[in-house]
Amino acid sequence: MSIEDVLSCIDANLPAATKRLMDFLRIPSISTDPAFKSDCDRAADWLVDDLQDIGIAAQKRPTPGHPMVVGHIDGPGPHLLFYGHYDVQPVDPLELWDRDPFDPEIQDTPKGQVIRGRGASDDKGQLMTFIEACRAWKSVHDKLPCKMTFFFEGEEESGSPSLVPFMRENAAELTCDIALICDTGLFESAVPAITTQLRGLLSEDFTITGPSRDLHSGMYGGIAMNPIRVLTRILAGLQDDTGAVTLPGFYDGVPELSDEIRSQWQRLNFDHAKYLSDVGLKAPAGEQDRTPLEMIWSRPTCDINGIWGGYTGDGFKTVLPSQASAKLSFRLVGTQDPEAIRTAFRSYLEDNLPDGFTVDYRTEEGAAAAQMSIADPAFEKARQALSDEWPRPAAYIGCGGSIPIAGYFKDILGMDAMLIGFGRDDDQIHSPNEKYDMESFHKGTRSWARILDALAG
Amino acid sequence: MSIEDVLSCIDANLPAATKRLMDFLRIPSISTDPAFKSDCDRAADWLVDDLQDIGIAAQKRPTPGHPMVVGHIDGPGPHLLFYGHYDVQPVDPLELWDRDPFDPEIQDTPKGQVIRGRGASDDKGQLMTFIEACRAWKSVHDKLPCKMTFFFEGEEESGSPSLVPFMRENAAELTCDIALICDTGLFESAVPAITTQLRGLLSEDFTITGPSRDLHSGMYGGIAMNPIRVLTRILAGLQDDTGAVTLPGFYDGVPELSDEIRSQWQRLNFDHAKYLSDVGLKAPAGEQDRTPLEMIWSRPTCDINGIWGGYTGDGFKTVLPSQASAKLSFRLVGTQDPEAIRTAFRSYLEDNLPDGFTVDYRTEEGAAAAQMSIADPAFEKARQALSDEWPRPAAYIGCGGSIPIAGYFKDILGMDAMLIGFGRDDDQIHSPNEKYDMESFHKGTRSWARILDALAG
Repeated sequence: MSIEDVLSCIDANLPAATKRLMDFLRIPSISTDPAFKSDCDRAADWLVDDLQDIGIAAQKRPTPGHPMVVGHIDGPGPHLLFYGHYDVQPVDPLELWDRDPFDPEIQDTPKGQVIRGRGASDDKGQLMTFIEACRAWKSVHDKLPCKMTFFFEGEEESGSPSLVPFMRENAAELTCDIALICDTGLFESAVPAITTQLRGLLSEDFTITGPSRDLHSGMYGGIAMNPIRVLTRILAGLQDDTGAVTLPGFYDGVPELSDEIRSQWQRLNFDHAKYLSDVGLKAPAGEQDRTPLEMIWSRPTCDINGIWGGYTGDGFKTVLPSQASAKLSFRLVGTQDPEAIRTAFRSYLEDNLPDGFTVDYRTEEGAAAAQMSIADPAFEKARQALSDEWPRPAAYIGCGGSIPIAGYFKDILGMDAMLIGFGRDDDQIHSPNEKYDMESFHKGTRSWARILDALAG
Repeated sequence: MSIEDVLSCIDANLPAATKRLMDFLRIPSISTDPAFKSDCDRAADWLVDDLQDIGIAAQKRPTPGHPMVVGHIDGPGPHLLFYGHYDVQPVDPLELWDRDPFDPEIQDTPKGQVIRGRGASDDKGQLMTFIEACRAWKSVHDKLPCKMTFFFEGEEESGSPSLVPFMRENAAELTCDIALICDTGLFESAVPAITTQLRGLLSEDFTITGPSRDLHSGMYGGIAMNPIRVLTRILAGLQDDTGAVTLPGFYDGVPELSDEIRSQWQRLNFDHAKYLSDVGLKAPAGEQDRTPLEMIWSRPTCDINGIWGGYTGDGFKTVLPSQASAKLSFRLVGTQDPEAIRTAFRSYLEDNLPDGFTVDYRTEEGAAAAQMSIADPAFEKARQALSDEWPRPAAYIGCGGSIPIAGYFKDILGMDAMLIGFGRDDDQIHSPNEKYDMESFHKGTRSWARILDALAG
């Protein structure tokens, strides 16, 4: 029997697979809202039942928050871990949805059929592509091609508070040869992709205080140092005219692209002008000697996410405020050390505060970037398998955002993760009217069958 | 009969004068709140009655807002205009008052007796010092020493919307040789002062827009120009490292101090270290080659009064915002032209906006600085008279804030104004528990009698 039999089985069973996904989507498993706690529990139960249906020994595992679902099944090939999350984002603003977010529907659109509903893309539809591939394989071969561990969480959309403790407590049980994660997308909705580098994130949220109270600018303007002036000078000094970050040591650990990755990215023909013009912008803002894809995937950034101080209401108030505040974040790459950069930033900030000024930090944890080692032959096998399924060859791409789970697999369990997903830019995840293309669901399932075949071989 | 008889009369009648002020303070003439419209009207009536009581032909004069009070009386000397305002600030937060703001009381304090109540200092107590001086003079001499016009408004605390139109319509009636204004203070609560220079004010309130919507910094961080970054660079560039404003032509029309004013200010021994440490600051922030008094009185400034953009709530949001906004103001001196500076600022701002960015301005009118010509001998006569009354000699001082009425007298009626007042820094005007020192009321009244004597001579 060949992979073709599995693919045929997937094709034949698409209606039944779609029906299963629709059942799953009807469970409003919003993790962040306590009102939906029992629904999250139901979604975990649903997954346990569905995994057991394929012959996988699956259990709901308690945590202080929503339960994990863990399943195991033996097999001949390498030991793979598959990760996904069964929780979904809140649905507000509800009035912007065209229908009940938890009454999913197959809809015809000019771009083809879509499955409309909360979680269709993020992440229920995506994780079901893997389960359906396993189901078809099992149905055709009566076993799976690899030894597998299934690992689903129900708190991904609310900060994953139970994830790291659970991974540490169950490290032996969860450690495999490689992790597969289905929570990312195609490149520009057309090219299949394996995300091999994710930027990390360091955030700083702080308030500087100068005068002990708000002052009248008539009485104090000119003699009293204005905290907003101080803040704007400090923030403006973080980047030079070319867009480079000025903190000492900031670029330590920032790698150059390998020739292989560089040429793959060149072949993607990224249309940065359209990417920018879609949001009303003209010129790329990053370091001027870098390509646009490097700016969003492989170069670190400094962004001011919020700023406030003084009078911000209607009309005018000649106030010279006591305080000024900002939230800023650095996207990190390579082996940049979040704590070293935090120290460099704070030294710079404090060195530039006038005598007598103070600063208060509201600190959050930083996360380093994740960079997968594509030297593992599994990556190239998976890339070939994806290329066989889709019209254009698959690429190793970067992701500007952070997906902390990939770093946790590396740091806690010592295994690389392959991020393969079939979402599209227009899926409207986290927004009203979320959808997943039927093509993503169908070809995604077929892709995983091909990848399992490749990894087992 | 000498001035001593008038001063003795003032001393003898202090209890009766105080009682009149208390009656006046009981009228809650809050101009900005329509609920107090009839009270404003009552305060105007009270003034008309009180002026008529001294033999001044006074009338309530309608405006689209609260009425003006205008009175005339003939006399031998120069024609003086006296200006004050009978309206008061709102009283909220009411819970911070120790008693009903409109139930005034004489209180003993460690620093002496004070009259406590809304308007005691700003401006009912101050304007009554002049009226009481006139009353005593009339009582002793049966006439006044100068020809006089009395001019009171009831909208000073709500932006004086009727003032300029009324002055234009009644220019002939209101034009005198010089204007006297009692709405300022002593220098550091001890030295009597004539304020001869008031800074002007130009404000700018604007929003810059870059991306057409808020973006996710994971997807766009690095490639999309961040409006907060643009704004901080623009604002930071407005002043150089020495505190000087960088706009081309900004210092056009900024005069150097005359030797006379410079030496008077030196003699004031301004304790800038205490002025700053009282509000938690250490070092003067202005141009580093200027004295602290120059920084607040005679040098122009640039202050950021408000700034906002992006996410400013609790926690963190990796947003790259569409917009960023600021309110800033320039305090102006000498003959700096507000419109020329507005043009220079906007050119600078727009030259520094990235391609595709836009800016929206919420414009308010600018006001030039007011500089009195102390060459008029009336100024030196008044300064000598003040010096005779108080323990320390009077000084010509500056005022960092704007008092638009002085400019209006100059521009519309062509007369200089002498700003003489007896308020103290701790009077808590515009705040709960406003007070006016009994010494200010008593010696203020005596001061005006001496000034009238000096100007008449």
